[in-house]
Amino acid sequence: MKAVRIYGAKDIRVEDIDIADPKPDQVQIKIKYCGICGSDLHAYTDGAGLPMKSHPVTGRKVPITLGHEFSGEVAQVGSAVNNFQVGDRVVVEPGIACGKCANCRAGKYNLCLNMHVEDGANCLGFSDDGGMAEFANINSTFVYKLPDTLDLKTGALTEPTAVAYEAIKKSGLIAGQTVAIMGAGPIGLLTGLLAKTMNSTQVYISDISEERLAKAQELGLKTLNPSKVDVNEEIRKEVPDGVDITFECAGAQPTLDTAFQITRRGGILQVVAIFGKPATIKLSFATVQGLNINTVFGYNNSFPQVIGMINNHQDLFKKLITNELGFDQAIEGIKSLATDKSQVKIMISPEL
Amino acid sequence: MKAVRIYGAKDIRVEDIDIADPKPDQVQIKIKYCGICGSDLHAYTDGAGLPMKSHPVTGRKVPITLGHEFSGEVAQVGSAVNNFQVGDRVVVEPGIACGKCANCRAGKYNLCLNMHVEDGANCLGFSDDGGMAEFANINSTFVYKLPDTLDLKTGALTEPTAVAYEAIKKSGLIAGQTVAIMGAGPIGLLTGLLAKTMNSTQVYISDISEERLAKAQELGLKTLNPSKVDVNEEIRKEVPDGVDITFECAGAQPTLDTAFQITRRGGILQVVAIFGKPATIKLSFATVQGLNINTVFGYNNSFPQVIGMINNHQDLFKKLITNELGFDQAIEGIKSLATDKSQVKIMISPEL
Ligand SMILES: [Zn+2]
Ligand SMILES: [Zn+2]
Repeated sequence: MKAVRIYGAKDIRVEDIDIADPKPDQVQIKIKYCGICGSDLHAYTDGAGLPMKSHPVTGRKVPITLGHEFSGEVAQVGSAVNNFQVGDRVVVEPGIACGKCANCRAGKYNLCLNMHVEDGANCLGFSDDGGMAEFANINSTFVYKLPDTLDLKTGALTEPTAVAYEAIKKSGLIAGQTVAIMGAGPIGLLTGLLAKTMNSTQVYISDISEERLAKAQELGLKTLNPSKVDVNEEIRKEVPDGVDITFECAGAQPTLDTAFQITRRGGILQVVAIFGKPATIKLSFATVQGLNINTVFGYNNSFPQVIGMINNHQDLFKKLITNELGFDQAIEGIKSLATDKSQVKIMISPEL
Repeated sequence: MKAVRIYGAKDIRVEDIDIADPKPDQVQIKIKYCGICGSDLHAYTDGAGLPMKSHPVTGRKVPITLGHEFSGEVAQVGSAVNNFQVGDRVVVEPGIACGKCANCRAGKYNLCLNMHVEDGANCLGFSDDGGMAEFANINSTFVYKLPDTLDLKTGALTEPTAVAYEAIKKSGLIAGQTVAIMGAGPIGLLTGLLAKTMNSTQVYISDISEERLAKAQELGLKTLNPSKVDVNEEIRKEVPDGVDITFECAGAQPTLDTAFQITRRGGILQVVAIFGKPATIKLSFATVQGLNINTVFGYNNSFPQVIGMINNHQDLFKKLITNELGFDQAIEGIKSLATDKSQVKIMISPEL
């Protein structure tokens, strides 16, 4: 079968490889769509997250089939699997965890105590073969059926939406609150969209890219460009006490500083982006404001909820899919994320 | 009556002043004990928290009677007060709030939206007269009776213990978890003591002062001196995954860094100290660890619980009272907090 394989930084190859039959507890999925993630770009540009030596749990090292945001149809069912049938339309939760440590037992497998980022990203598409291929064999525990009403392309948004959903869960956001989002990249937009569909009273989103803000406006979010307006002043015109929750999806010092400014006393600053550099935080101000600064890493136990939320608001989620490419255009698609701010989610499809 | 009054930095005077009769909603308290707080020292050394011009809510400016950790007996009852009698043994919750804003209505009056630190600390003893005097008139809503079994001196620990209790509430600590505390000053010790009385599986506390650690040991805490051992290594010998919750009660970059190290994946870093300088935080590490960084400012709705907890473990709490002084020694007592690490809580008493 054809697969998009990464060998290291700046080395992605489209190859013909073999696919085994599924093991007893696996299903084999004929992949239909696989989204490109910012982390695929980082793997390409500097090898981030790739297992350059044997991964302690999967035993795999590069080359690895890329892709962790994928959907498809069940093509074969392992002998021990009794809850899937050939033809089922499914999405895949790609996280890798030990399943045995205290955090795994507590359901927090995204924070598995036996997984270490130094070994590579603990996720299909990094530390084991992912979804930019014609087929993938996946442990059935982490395969979820899509409702009949939800197409496979939109369904492939489940994985990145789960990242946004976990941030919302950790923030404690409840309906009716006010929200601000720093950064209108894919995760910022998905967070804003989820907050909007939860009936948040107001969802502000800020970004310096007018292309991204145009997309945010399509989603019904209230956009602010910090290169044109004072974000704090604008928000406080309408929400004088500041917003209940701010999601930091940009990962830079200036947006973090703004996030502190615009969050109300007793509010939540939810860090979603992975910061490239150490941040300076005026903790005494955070203390006087009684803020909690939450972080989030991956997600757990949320695919059913996310699938349901996307299904209810498909038309809005579809607006985030900005391009579709075949395998041979995958490298070009990955590289375009670095420069083309009009792209939100690019889908790779074996059928193109 | 005699009162310890502060006029500004380095200017505290023991004076004779008049005390009015209580207003209809007040009780007049004959004060028995008033603890000295680190914030009294800061007010003395550099005027921190003092209203140098008229406070927008209280209308008061210096001179102000110091003291916000006080207990006493009801001496007079205002005409509209029907739940106190002369002779009742009470403690006072000293926070000042508007009572009208969204946070006050929600019970989070410690984060009152109409209070601003620039105007002075919003607390009796700073922005209105406090408890280092023979008498004080106090709104009865913020006066709490002590149980018969709890003496007035130990009861005067209620206020600082409420600070520690609020940190514990915000951290979400539950019985059986493991705890580390950075800094064995009064709030660190009180936090450790509360955690210990809640049956935390293990309570570690670190400080570079052997005098403070000796006190911590008296309380049954497990002490670590970072100038002698690697705190992270020592804790991980017994708790390999790291502790569930770390309380940062020291407020310095090195202790904050250690706090990040020793907290388990998915744990809580509860900032309790007010940091003097901006802190540098490796947010990407916090993210990979899935940590929440909580802050805390003051407390609300917790005096009854705190009084109950102190009452249950009086003998341990009494160990924190290290000296008793009269009004004429108050300035000396306040200054001693800067240098004498053997002092935890010094009580000022009008009767000495
Ligand atoms: Zn695990
Ligand atoms: Zn208020």
